[in-house]
Amino acid sequence: MAPHATPQGLGEFDLIRQYFERPVRRAALGIGDDCALLQPGAGCQLAVSSDMLVQDRHFFADADPFQLGHKALAVNLSDLAACGASPLAFTLALALPAADAAWLAPFSRGLLALADRHGCELVGGDTTRGPLNICITVFGEVPAPAGRSQALLRCGARCGDDIYVSGTLGDARLALEAIRGEWTLPAALRKRACTRLHQPEPRVALGQALRGLATSAIDISDGLLGDLGHVLKASGVGARLDAPCLVDRMACHGPALDAVVPAEHQLRCVLAGGDDYELAFTAPADRRDAVAAAAQHSATPVSRIGTITARGGLQVVDAQGAAITGHWASFDHFC
Amino acid sequence: MAPHATPQGLGEFDLIRQYFERPVRRAALGIGDDCALLQPGAGCQLAVSSDMLVQDRHFFADADPFQLGHKALAVNLSDLAACGASPLAFTLALALPAADAAWLAPFSRGLLALADRHGCELVGGDTTRGPLNICITVFGEVPAPAGRSQALLRCGARCGDDIYVSGTLGDARLALEAIRGEWTLPAALRKRACTRLHQPEPRVALGQALRGLATSAIDISDGLLGDLGHVLKASGVGARLDAPCLVDRMACHGPALDAVVPAEHQLRCVLAGGDDYELAFTAPADRRDAVAAAAQHSATPVSRIGTITARGGLQVVDAQGAAITGHWASFDHFC
Repeated sequence: MAPHATPQGLGEFDLIRQYFERPVRRAALGIGDDCALLQPGAGCQLAVSSDMLVQDRHFFADADPFQLGHKALAVNLSDLAACGASPLAFTLALALPAADAAWLAPFSRGLLALADRHGCELVGGDTTRGPLNICITVFGEVPAPAGRSQALLRCGARCGDDIYVSGTLGDARLALEAIRGEWTLPAALRKRACTRLHQPEPRVALGQALRGLATSAIDISDGLLGDLGHVLKASGVGARLDAPCLVDRMACHGPALDAVVPAEHQLRCVLAGGDDYELAFTAPADRRDAVAAAAQHSATPVSRIGTITARGGLQVVDAQGAAITGHWASFDHFC
Repeated sequence: MAPHATPQGLGEFDLIRQYFERPVRRAALGIGDDCALLQPGAGCQLAVSSDMLVQDRHFFADADPFQLGHKALAVNLSDLAACGASPLAFTLALALPAADAAWLAPFSRGLLALADRHGCELVGGDTTRGPLNICITVFGEVPAPAGRSQALLRCGARCGDDIYVSGTLGDARLALEAIRGEWTLPAALRKRACTRLHQPEPRVALGQALRGLATSAIDISDGLLGDLGHVLKASGVGARLDAPCLVDRMACHGPALDAVVPAEHQLRCVLAGGDDYELAFTAPADRRDAVAAAAQHSATPVSRIGTITARGGLQVVDAQGAAITGHWASFDHFC
């Protein structure tokens, strides 16, 4: 509770001014008062999400600070994407062991570069000394004309809907395992996987393009099966996923990976790897053209991977429709 | 990054459901999807503030969890109060060493009891394993008819304005020093001081009553001089504080305290103690009746403690108008 001196002698307010304070364009008031002031557009709802990143849990102590700044915001923007919201602003609460310029400068560059790309302004927050902890709360707008929200929710999947995922899955998990020494990957593959782990790209444009089209959506942070499970539970439905549509879902997929990692383990990474920050969503089977157009409009690859079923539970089936079983535990922070 | 088992075997989602999830009344969507959805009132701006509480920095390891839950939200509501905003909702991001029911149950009770008193709904957040860290982001509404915000800001103090503070100052600091063993207080005084430290009451009703009346406002978290200094800097003015109006500002003030703590140190606690969560604000000298009415309407004691001056800087003067000097450093998390 008592103030401590830092090697650089950089105070709390200097730190904020130097690395984080910039004029706001869209917010009514940014950093520097007791509160920031946001003015959501007329007829819009405000979508809010908060994610906390903790050292040794979400990143390693030697994590590149530029990538960490990027990722801390990316995982939050991914929640806005899953809601179909347009990014507006965010707050940053940061606990730091010390006010270290060599860390803060690249961290803020990585953070603000991604923020700029999505027109998402840093409007406030908090800094304090403590074990490294990055907590971002992000705000986006969702049209709600006449009070009817266009937000994409988890509860709208219906029997017969197609199930889609964006981009690629499983590479972040593969990178984590490679870093832990469980696999020795060729350099190019390791780099590709590590970029997916350390610098995920939130699917913000796709989320917006899916408004009025997807019947449900979620972002895949804890693993496809676990996160899709939330959709199924909220919607009161089941799902059948086609393994042949999943095995080549990794960005690292190919003979070079097959030579090192068994196909069965690759499927495990795709189904339950986590840290993907892709969107899983459902849409009516008669809207396939519209989904393809949304994918094209948002320049985001999208794959159809299965079907929503009336019966509860989630089945993974092979090309012949036979169920594949496996122990694919989803990520849980406390279990 | 790998899941860990907890003694209770309580998973992340069970934990949220059991201790924090409740139906929302005002928000369009609460806990359970990728984002919460807020629908600010027509013609309102959204006031946003975020505060992070870290063990050994903002509270001790043996802090009472009920009081800690209360305080974590109170310090955030205090920022809304300083803005004149009406509480609406909040998110909670929580890093915990373990999912310990004996801690979580009273923590959530303290948190939600204060939330209920202010009609402030828990709409979302995050839980993860890590060194104890509590990050709350709070949302309030401020009327902004025709785009003219009624938010109380730091930049509006004008020469000749009266300076006020709510409630009492310095007791939280006194409690901290007593806990550290620097003073041995009589039991009743120690209890009174500790309540001010551990369970501050945010001045939410006063903040709202001051809309359209106070020319500036700030909440006192780092100490009166330091926080008032932010107002002076933002407003481009100076201030003269009357020591005789300050010496009896402590809730613990009286002969029993005088017998233990020198008057000079009491003044130091009042001026630069911190953790007070009272409001400091300015208002035109011809609105004293209106300020008294706002104080009465909000059932909040308010004291006039000085005057805004044209010249920069902040002077504390005695009954004869002579400047009192002292080293009253304000709190800084990194210096």
